[in-house]
Amino acid sequence: MKYFENLEAIKYEGPTTENLFAFRHYNPEEVVMGKTMKEHLRFAVAYWHTMTQDGTDPFGQPTNIRNWNGSTPMETAKNRVEAFFEILEKLGIEYFCFHDIDIAPEGDSLEEFFANIDEITDLIKEKMDQTGIKLLWNTANMFSQPHFNNGAASSNSAEVYAVAAAQVKKGLDISKKLNGQNYVFWGGREGYESLLNTDMAFEQDNIARLFRMAIAYGEKIGHKPQFLIEPKPKEPSKHQYDFDAATTMAFIQKYGLEGDFKLNLEANHATLAGHTFEHELNVARSYDALGSIDANQGDLLLGWDTDEFPTNIYDTAFTMYEILENGGIAPGGINFDAKVRRSSFEMEDLILAHIAGMDTYARGLKIAAKLKEDGYLDKLKEARYASFKGDLGQRILADEEDLETLSEYALTHDTPALESSHLEMVKSRLNDYLV
Amino acid sequence: MKYFENLEAIKYEGPTTENLFAFRHYNPEEVVMGKTMKEHLRFAVAYWHTMTQDGTDPFGQPTNIRNWNGSTPMETAKNRVEAFFEILEKLGIEYFCFHDIDIAPEGDSLEEFFANIDEITDLIKEKMDQTGIKLLWNTANMFSQPHFNNGAASSNSAEVYAVAAAQVKKGLDISKKLNGQNYVFWGGREGYESLLNTDMAFEQDNIARLFRMAIAYGEKIGHKPQFLIEPKPKEPSKHQYDFDAATTMAFIQKYGLEGDFKLNLEANHATLAGHTFEHELNVARSYDALGSIDANQGDLLLGWDTDEFPTNIYDTAFTMYEILENGGIAPGGINFDAKVRRSSFEMEDLILAHIAGMDTYARGLKIAAKLKEDGYLDKLKEARYASFKGDLGQRILADEEDLETLSEYALTHDTPALESSHLEMVKSRLNDYLV
Amino acid sequence: MKYFENLEAIKYEGPTTENLFAFRHYNPEEVVMGKTMKEHLRFAVAYWHTMTQDGTDPFGQPTNIRNWNGSTPMETAKNRVEAFFEILEKLGIEYFCFHDIDIAPEGDSLEEFFANIDEITDLIKEKMDQTGIKLLWNTANMFSQPHFNNGAASSNSAEVYAVAAAQVKKGLDISKKLNGQNYVFWGGREGYESLLNTDMAFEQDNIARLFRMAIAYGEKIGHKPQFLIEPKPKEPSKHQYDFDAATTMAFIQKYGLEGDFKLNLEANHATLAGHTFEHELNVARSYDALGSIDANQGDLLLGWDTDEFPTNIYDTAFTMYEILENGGIAPGGINFDAKVRRSSFEMEDLILAHIAGMDTYARGLKIAAKLKEDGYLDKLKEARYASFKGDLGQRILADEEDLETLSEYALTHDTPALESSHLEMVKSRLNDYLV
Amino acid sequence: MKYFENLEAIKYEGPTTENLFAFRHYNPEEVVMGKTMKEHLRFAVAYWHTMTQDGTDPFGQPTNIRNWNGSTPMETAKNRVEAFFEILEKLGIEYFCFHDIDIAPEGDSLEEFFANIDEITDLIKEKMDQTGIKLLWNTANMFSQPHFNNGAASSNSAEVYAVAAAQVKKGLDISKKLNGQNYVFWGGREGYESLLNTDMAFEQDNIARLFRMAIAYGEKIGHKPQFLIEPKPKEPSKHQYDFDAATTMAFIQKYGLEGDFKLNLEANHATLAGHTFEHELNVARSYDALGSIDANQGDLLLGWDTDEFPTNIYDTAFTMYEILENGGIAPGGINFDAKVRRSSFEMEDLILAHIAGMDTYARGLKIAAKLKEDGYLDKLKEARYASFKGDLGQRILADEEDLETLSEYALTHDTPALESSHLEMVKSRLNDYLV
Repeated sequence: MKYFENLEAIKYEGPTTENLFAFRHYNPEEVVMGKTMKEHLRFAVAYWHTMTQDGTDPFGQPTNIRNWNGSTPMETAKNRVEAFFEILEKLGIEYFCFHDIDIAPEGDSLEEFFANIDEITDLIKEKMDQTGIKLLWNTANMFSQPHFNNGAASSNSAEVYAVAAAQVKKGLDISKKLNGQNYVFWGGREGYESLLNTDMAFEQDNIARLFRMAIAYGEKIGHKPQFLIEPKPKEPSKHQYDFDAATTMAFIQKYGLEGDFKLNLEANHATLAGHTFEHELNVARSYDALGSIDANQGDLLLGWDTDEFPTNIYDTAFTMYEILENGGIAPGGINFDAKVRRSSFEMEDLILAHIAGMDTYARGLKIAAKLKEDGYLDKLKEARYASFKGDLGQRILADEEDLETLSEYALTHDTPALESSHLEMVKSRLNDYLV
Repeated sequence: MKYFENLEAIKYEGPTTENLFAFRHYNPEEVVMGKTMKEHLRFAVAYWHTMTQDGTDPFGQPTNIRNWNGSTPMETAKNRVEAFFEILEKLGIEYFCFHDIDIAPEGDSLEEFFANIDEITDLIKEKMDQTGIKLLWNTANMFSQPHFNNGAASSNSAEVYAVAAAQVKKGLDISKKLNGQNYVFWGGREGYESLLNTDMAFEQDNIARLFRMAIAYGEKIGHKPQFLIEPKPKEPSKHQYDFDAATTMAFIQKYGLEGDFKLNLEANHATLAGHTFEHELNVARSYDALGSIDANQGDLLLGWDTDEFPTNIYDTAFTMYEILENGGIAPGGINFDAKVRRSSFEMEDLILAHIAGMDTYARGLKIAAKLKEDGYLDKLKEARYASFKGDLGQRILADEEDLETLSEYALTHDTPALESSHLEMVKSRLNDYLV
Repeated sequence: MKYFENLEAIKYEGPTTENLFAFRHYNPEEVVMGKTMKEHLRFAVAYWHTMTQDGTDPFGQPTNIRNWNGSTPMETAKNRVEAFFEILEKLGIEYFCFHDIDIAPEGDSLEEFFANIDEITDLIKEKMDQTGIKLLWNTANMFSQPHFNNGAASSNSAEVYAVAAAQVKKGLDISKKLNGQNYVFWGGREGYESLLNTDMAFEQDNIARLFRMAIAYGEKIGHKPQFLIEPKPKEPSKHQYDFDAATTMAFIQKYGLEGDFKLNLEANHATLAGHTFEHELNVARSYDALGSIDANQGDLLLGWDTDEFPTNIYDTAFTMYEILENGGIAPGGINFDAKVRRSSFEMEDLILAHIAGMDTYARGLKIAAKLKEDGYLDKLKEARYASFKGDLGQRILADEEDLETLSEYALTHDTPALESSHLEMVKSRLNDYLV
Repeated sequence: MKYFENLEAIKYEGPTTENLFAFRHYNPEEVVMGKTMKEHLRFAVAYWHTMTQDGTDPFGQPTNIRNWNGSTPMETAKNRVEAFFEILEKLGIEYFCFHDIDIAPEGDSLEEFFANIDEITDLIKEKMDQTGIKLLWNTANMFSQPHFNNGAASSNSAEVYAVAAAQVKKGLDISKKLNGQNYVFWGGREGYESLLNTDMAFEQDNIARLFRMAIAYGEKIGHKPQFLIEPKPKEPSKHQYDFDAATTMAFIQKYGLEGDFKLNLEANHATLAGHTFEHELNVARSYDALGSIDANQGDLLLGWDTDEFPTNIYDTAFTMYEILENGGIAPGGINFDAKVRRSSFEMEDLILAHIAGMDTYARGLKIAAKLKEDGYLDKLKEARYASFKGDLGQRILADEEDLETLSEYALTHDTPALESSHLEMVKSRLNDYLV
């Protein structure tokens, strides 16, 4: 514990303040519905927010105080690996995620960048072997550098497309080396600034083309992680092609990628698209495409990606309910794609924020499990759809009715009556589960 | 209990389902921080949502099943009074609110309308005397009828202005008759559809003029309820002048109405304006103008006034915290300006929904009281602003510093450093209070 | 001209006020890019907004003054047919659209409703034969009545499903009778109020099932209009399944409906989903699914469907550009799904508003045609994507590259440089086309 | 013309492409309504967006290619001054605006920072004297540096407050030196991240205190620029106190600052607050507080400050109409607080973008002037409010009516009828002015 050995003392006291660095609700070995909490909650730490985010915002300079900066970019990169595994062990988290650019300096050429990646991933592999910690997913950052200004796979430049392909190849090579369980594509600039100068169909064809190349290369090298696309509607681009889960499923189907691609869904991306997170999870499930999640929360009164650590119990309960309904999230996981607030700039906040997120998810899991065990929502739905258990309903579901027979039915029966949904009472009852 | 004697049996079961019509958290006589819950939570039922709302929406016909419809509008109006007091008694709620148009049929002329009001308010007064139930506030509906299309006090028509004045006069007469504690103005059409044909300053002068007439008339008749303006940013108008708490305070100050007017704040109106409800409450407090609240909740992913019954515990806890900080809300109250969902169309939903709302507020009160008693947020703020307890801070607050002395100070001291706010940890701690 | 013979005189004067009821820009026979304006702009009038909308809003009573009300619902319905064709002829519009419920009273039973429809459609057919006016599309209103509260094809009730099927059958019978060119499904309540009590996948299966029945029935009766789904994200439902163009394409592909279904896109629905209208049109084109459009405009600062008549020239220019790129919109059209403002409540406003809309579209067409003829945007895109005309680009497009060859290319070439998009200049240039 | 001598050749051709660097609509000496265009359109260039913005966004590295970078921060700062005045002269713009931090390196201490400012402002003054170019306004950046994380005047730290005061003093000293016509306060972090740890009233008291110190210091040094507050609702802060024009007027009135403070309004800040820009301008006028404007445009489908150059003619026409109604904007101006898109990263884009903005404003001015000269909107309003010219209306406006007399009037007259606003026709007519 070189980097986190002297965490600052507790400042604010509350009802249970004996140790701010202790979990209150997350107990990795506690069994919930037949599995341990850590099996349910396959937590991962995100390298970018934890190790490289500096507190900058569009109107402000860096604020974060970090103690791992070295005298060269490579020294800093190596220190970060060490500090990162300290955090993972301190938190008892078994998975992690990264972009290529997070872990290694870009250097002056692609060649140098790749060489840096090789050196750092050797170190990461060593740490993984020592600790048993695993790679949930990696990805290539194809949106930060100037040449990706107009996109990567959707770029107007064939040369840029080649660079993107090179990074994806390298990403898959790393994935094989580190035995990554998933591989993610987030198209931060796969979209447009203006439709006036954009050929959307052409660009999407090219994206699908790159995805097919990735599938082929994975097969060639004998490493097939679960491929995941991460939807987001906007930011940094004015419009991004993978707007939300359904839009991405339209794309996946159009290009016949169903067998190889699932979705990596993020809470704050859902809200930016105008959806609840549970909606996005439910959509993904309806396409059998729920792959993994990025666990954070947004601010519905703000129009940008705030990437806050999740602390809302309603949200994590609904999220975990969808995950339970999905039979779990493996081989995906619950990745904290969340950054400390600009005002939480001290080293200890990295630990405190993850504890806050993990505890909130643990609480969500327990609530969701209780709901599921009681069958509260299941019974409610069963009663609500009971009519489809009757003769008419069964014939409809068996495709034995057509417009004529149904019309005949309707014309010879009274106008049907519904029953109240009592939604206010249902929500009040849910509070009994929450609290 | 004529209208509510046979409430439907319980349908869905949960962890504690013995009686859906029982309170789980609201206990009127329970003492919290030295006052009974009913003193803290001066609940009121809204006549409009409870008695006259029919389930219509912009794309749908009425759905609500109600058993009080008579053979004439006046018979219906009288039945409603009886049913309304049944609900109030059943729920143990001591206050109510109404618009003139809610309680009495408009008839064919203003004269007939006022006569109807007189007759119905006689009945209401009788019920009030029998039950001890009190009028929290009444108001005039000056937005539904066609002649109010361009506003009431802000109308382009002097004749319409006269009608508005007549309704306000009648409203104050009723208020005196029923001993109303507050009188509310909500300017649903005091705003504009288009700036192209609108003289905003002229219209606002006219609104202030009507308010001054109301103050004068109240003095004349020797009845001075607390006057309240209810902010809302839009809907039905494209823009409404009382956009939010701060906008309304600008208006109140411009026209010198501070002594007589406070604010009636609504949760869903806050979110439509882009604010949290606690923000609006805090703004009002900073102007010493927190008068009363309309307790409901909106859906932040929808852009219209959903007026849901409050069921989110975070929201009611933060609301009650502001009310505790305000030293209570009296002579205002907590009015359920909330309507049952279109799918909660049965009679029993009126009871269930209010129970849901009252329980959620009771939970919020308990959480807020515990936070206040522990001083959790107070200590946090005290530590955060500690610097203003020092020499420099004290001189600043005493207005003993100026730009030159402060500049001298800054030039002779190091760049100041801040401490982390640990916001993630604070929010996680808050969850310990919630649950 | 019974209903519109005495239109009110002109009130406001502007630069060219000689006749407010004259077109300034729309000239049906004027040739633009080889087709007449009326061939390009297949305008349709919407029965609902024009004949049955009464000016009500969620906070207000009806305002519209209409002179066609009879002493019975059927008499009113017949008067409306006459008045409607007067409007169509007065405006020189050749197409119209309606819901079943717009044209005929519901009566006391489905049987009576259908009988009313038969009688009114006889009258409509007569008028069509006399005037040569054609049916662009009809649809069934399956969202207004109480039994559709939880949806129609997505209802939890099999009995309601049967009623929906009966209305669709009747809709297709009418379509055949009136030779409708398209048939539309708008799922106003095909969605959910709360996910807590909803089985989304089950409901969507049922929707697809009804669509297959419709296809089968059309084949059986030998009448196959173009089937269209109209996306809308929300309102009246909290969430509607056909959120936007891409979401609907995901659904269409999932259920194999590509051959039979296209999209009917609406401007205001696009903005409610967070998109520009041109984006939605472009998405539809990329799936070869641009069927027809509902021409209106929303207010981006309001969160509900304002359904305004289109008066923004930028918007209609971009819309017509997409339609030109699509090779036209036939057999679809440009349906004014727009309602007069609540303050435009006089009979003459129905004419004035359509003239405003048609002139704005005519202006848009001329601008789009000039842009296309000059090849302004085409040249801009050609230059921008030029790199894909080179060797590398051609090999990529021919699927002759893979991750390894592209990686090799990238590693042996310098980091690519892009050229500025000069978007500010492009937009300024566009203004030269507009004005 | 050292920095801009070799601008790149024209790439895209349109209807009038002879010279992309020429104005098409802005002619500084052309007389419109009795004043030259340059007197109406007191354009200013913003130092920050033009000279220091580098193309970074929250997900991307710098893209802008600039040729003025020197070998030291001071050398770069001096080159920028030279390049900046080249741009001003090339564009024929007579005003400019800056933050302290834009023009001079911060150095290692406040003292060094101030010394750098002195040296650079000497150079700027020299350039001003040579060219006749004037300072519209300057301001202090009190939001970028880490110590301003929790605000400047609203900081929880008295030491930070002192630094803010020092910067304001320096700002006023510069303003005197350069004869600045206005002095702006934009409170980017005067607001909160979370209400949980914030004392809003305390913080606002402190802000007002600093403003009073500024007034006092201005009086002491005998330099009194017009003080301006620039409202913005959010970003970077979650909530900013100066949410919009009305909120800021509430603050100004609360603290009695009306005599010294007006508003600097920005188009994109208006839309982030949920308003049109013309609304904000109109509100400011109604408080006699329209000081100056920041001319840009936002994207209403995005939730952050895009700061685009204005290219929408509707918007600039409505803006200029309000400015004409205000009798002009002097001593304020029209400051291009706008940045080139990230994809417009070449030097020439700085010129092209300003030309786009200036031409769009020139077009807006001409349209607004024609509207005003024709009296189109004036006549429309005159007709609409005609009723207040009648007896009743005149008595109301003369405060000769009260609730009783008006009630008597209403009870003895028929329900008033309104006239249609014909808004669709009005908007269509407006298009005749636009095009």
